[in-house]
Amino acid sequence: MQVAVLAHESFPDRAKTAVGILRYGDHDVRALLDRDTAGDRVSDHVPDLPDVPIVASLDDVEDDLDALIVGVAPIGGAFDPSWRDDVRRALERGYDVIAGLHDFLADDEEFAALAAEHGAELQDVRRPPDDLSVSEGRAGDVDARVVHTVGTDCSTGKMTAAFEVRDAARERGIDAAVVPTGQTGVMIAGWGMVVDRVISDFAAGAVERMVVDAAEDHDLLVVEGQGAIAHPAYSGVTTSILHGAMPDALVLCHVAGQETVHGYESFEIPDPASYATLYEAMAAPVRPADVLAGMVNTSGLDEGPAHEAVESFADELAAPATDPVRFGVDDAVLDALL
Amino acid sequence: MQVAVLAHESFPDRAKTAVGILRYGDHDVRALLDRDTAGDRVSDHVPDLPDVPIVASLDDVEDDLDALIVGVAPIGGAFDPSWRDDVRRALERGYDVIAGLHDFLADDEEFAALAAEHGAELQDVRRPPDDLSVSEGRAGDVDARVVHTVGTDCSTGKMTAAFEVRDAARERGIDAAVVPTGQTGVMIAGWGMVVDRVISDFAAGAVERMVVDAAEDHDLLVVEGQGAIAHPAYSGVTTSILHGAMPDALVLCHVAGQETVHGYESFEIPDPASYATLYEAMAAPVRPADVLAGMVNTSGLDEGPAHEAVESFADELAAPATDPVRFGVDDAVLDALL
Repeated sequence: MQVAVLAHESFPDRAKTAVGILRYGDHDVRALLDRDTAGDRVSDHVPDLPDVPIVASLDDVEDDLDALIVGVAPIGGAFDPSWRDDVRRALERGYDVIAGLHDFLADDEEFAALAAEHGAELQDVRRPPDDLSVSEGRAGDVDARVVHTVGTDCSTGKMTAAFEVRDAARERGIDAAVVPTGQTGVMIAGWGMVVDRVISDFAAGAVERMVVDAAEDHDLLVVEGQGAIAHPAYSGVTTSILHGAMPDALVLCHVAGQETVHGYESFEIPDPASYATLYEAMAAPVRPADVLAGMVNTSGLDEGPAHEAVESFADELAAPATDPVRFGVDDAVLDALL
Repeated sequence: MQVAVLAHESFPDRAKTAVGILRYGDHDVRALLDRDTAGDRVSDHVPDLPDVPIVASLDDVEDDLDALIVGVAPIGGAFDPSWRDDVRRALERGYDVIAGLHDFLADDEEFAALAAEHGAELQDVRRPPDDLSVSEGRAGDVDARVVHTVGTDCSTGKMTAAFEVRDAARERGIDAAVVPTGQTGVMIAGWGMVVDRVISDFAAGAVERMVVDAAEDHDLLVVEGQGAIAHPAYSGVTTSILHGAMPDALVLCHVAGQETVHGYESFEIPDPASYATLYEAMAAPVRPADVLAGMVNTSGLDEGPAHEAVESFADELAAPATDPVRFGVDDAVLDALL
């Protein structure tokens, strides 16, 4: 799919979705839209990303595209009026427009009319399908290996870990796919459901449906986790994914040195071994799954301490560990999960 | 509040909400509407319920009421056209109409117009408020004792246990209230939120809001649980309530002799002691709470085996237990929770 990714005034640091699509997406990204850095190349800013031109608006893109992707998600998820011209232009050229905002594009009268007129589709990935139902407890029966990335908090790298495990498995020739459960993962993968937006009765059922469907086409599924099972606010989403996906193996993701829940600092994070045991205890009655590998985000540490943090996390879990971004997913980690 | 309760062709066995309102509600029920048993008295059918006349339609009710409550919830939660005359008549007389159906009364054009014309309110208790947000982790700070009924499955008597604990505490002079989280509980209590209808991101936040608000007015809160923490489909709702409510004590509810999850018979229910340990392990990192009492539904057993089932459950939990409907909430159970 040939796409342009909109990231005005945000690339790279505040454009998590755009960076994720460039790093992990199967899209053919022809241009990045950012009026602040227009004229540069993506690789000028993030060396390991594909070398894509940055332009000021869709008018500067000559290629024929399939879609424009809104690759920035401001706090609150509102649509920024300064994006309006590019979305309008995309629809006029017949391109689909894909976004993960709280404000749904399809609810915008002008966009809806333009989309209808030009045969384009407005895809709001945060909008759940309207035919969801409760889980039937069937995900454990699928004919695929199911790995699930879980965490000690939000923002511990569960999505990144999922895509890195997928890529390491693909390098070994395994037909692997991520089952995305959050808006960035869904935008990157180009399918999936944002589980925290599903009504709680149907959250496990939404995950079950994704796992059952994806298992038809792949041999290894890596289900992206959300939140944390002992998070004061998001544990329900976490639990729904764990029991809806019924995984075979868990990967525990942690930020090196973090001791309290982000934004909820009066709540301590249990030590990694206890946290792994809690996930395993919750998985067991529905479908037993052990924490077979660990992923540590060491981005706050220098090289030496980063290695130490990985080793210490592996010791605590009694399982192989890595920082998937810094050190890659090595054979020991991948072997443990397969 | 003076009310009539609609339970056409359903009283008493298929009218769980009507029976609950009659047994636990603070409403002054002036009449029950059931065209099948019209002319009888409620106590002809269920001896321990209040002696209320059963009539065929609202036309047979001469009292001036505040509301008509739809006290029957058919599978699927659809509005039955045969109820339309009574709802219409109630609105014409200026009464509010309260229902917990999936079909919202307020979305019915005729009802909405009649309600507006006669100054009546259509209350759809399954519709969540539109200003919900994520939990802030504050429920643990409230100035009230918080007890939470949890279960080994759906339909184990968690709502009944909550109201029975409330009533036993009230008899002792304690200002106690139930925090209702399901549609029947909400209909009975006349307030609350149906948590399984809340989007999963906000489920814990909805419970937190209810607990914080109710703690302003009461000394003991009994938070009604939903589902079960190891249920393949509903565990997310259960977890959201546990962490949103941040209780001080747990009551484990179980159906005597049940060994597999209802409707999910390939899933075994962990033994009661293990299940209690799992709830405690999940509560601990957010706010420690132990299972301090057990409630067994023994309705399928004769008197002797029922006593044995209660004793055996108490032994397994190492905590006092009872069947709250059959044997009442005794001092040992109540003392353990306070």
